[in-house]
Amino acid sequence: MNFPSKLIEEAVQEISRLPGIGKKTALRLALHLLKQPEMVTESLTQAMTKLRTETRFCKLCHNISDDDICPICKGVHRDKGLICVVEDIPDVLAIENTSQYNGLYHVLGGVISPIQGVGPEELKIDSLLQRIDQPSTEGQVQEVILALPSTMEGDTTSFFISRKLKERGIKVSTIARGIPIGGELEYTDEVTLGRSILTRVNYSTD
Amino acid sequence: MNFPSKLIEEAVQEISRLPGIGKKTALRLALHLLKQPEMVTESLTQAMTKLRTETRFCKLCHNISDDDICPICKGVHRDKGLICVVEDIPDVLAIENTSQYNGLYHVLGGVISPIQGVGPEELKIDSLLQRIDQPSTEGQVQEVILALPSTMEGDTTSFFISRKLKERGIKVSTIARGIPIGGELEYTDEVTLGRSILTRVNYSTD
Repeated sequence: MNFPSKLIEEAVQEISRLPGIGKKTALRLALHLLKQPEMVTESLTQAMTKLRTETRFCKLCHNISDDDICPICKGVHRDKGLICVVEDIPDVLAIENTSQYNGLYHVLGGVISPIQGVGPEELKIDSLLQRIDQPSTEGQVQEVILALPSTMEGDTTSFFISRKLKERGIKVSTIARGIPIGGELEYTDEVTLGRSILTRVNYSTD
Repeated sequence: MNFPSKLIEEAVQEISRLPGIGKKTALRLALHLLKQPEMVTESLTQAMTKLRTETRFCKLCHNISDDDICPICKGVHRDKGLICVVEDIPDVLAIENTSQYNGLYHVLGGVISPIQGVGPEELKIDSLLQRIDQPSTEGQVQEVILALPSTMEGDTTSFFISRKLKERGIKVSTIARGIPIGGELEYTDEVTLGRSILTRVNYSTD
């Protein structure tokens, strides 16, 4: 694509580096900014710069935080004996939005992937074990829930962590996999359907 | 959605103001920036700020330009007797990318739309007439091609401009509408198909 101006070419170049944004979308966004008052671009760039330079991560669970310890880890009503291990920050948001979970989190920052050169050392696994080995004044961790993706990498990571935790006598559980609520058997993939039969649970009317 | 940090909430707020970007995509982009080196965010925000503050528009055709007159209007090999009228800047890029057009452009900056409160005065129509009435040293405009969208608003604008141009004895043409090349009759909408029969052209084997 030929651009009539170097400025717009550079802006399109930079914007299209964002994931999922191609050259055409980048051009549309750049032209949108040009049509808006200068204030719009200013507050957008300021918010992004502040985000990048000032964001901190919770020292305990590695979630995004404004302080050293995030509001969830500081939460008075949170169950400090329960830790849910997730791959990344959006997973924390997703679980929090269900309002069904009242424990703490631990953000690994990825999953073990030999192909991409991600080993256990690159993840926050040591820091998870530390939280268990050096309990705070608020008590010992009783259970760890593994909520990692059900991919080869996620399963490997779950297996690795579960071994370390079982050595320490900690109860390890994993989130239930099965047919989504409202999902139809006919359109469910074979692997999920097969596993949902093997891992069937007692029927309860509660 | 509850965010663990004010900084990310503000960034998501600002990013999701862009057209076609919702809260979830904005969050994904914000978390992407957080994972990248600070340099990435810096060059992105710099490019956007520069775009917004330094971009100028060509005084003749109102296309984006680094100077007062854009490279197309300055072009030595361009046909100065031919002006193609388009709605907005991306249309110029689209036509330029075909490499089939060698004349000049005129960017209206919109189309007449009484519902949205856009009248002829809001568009660069006067400036188009001025280009015709006060010809530069390079000669008189011979023909104006209307390449506006085939919507009610686009057609109204085309009609309005064509009347003004015909008063001045300028030849007015419009881009051909019809079945796209490679398109199948069966799947073409009735309006396009009907018009393509009414506006049929002589069969030529050139």
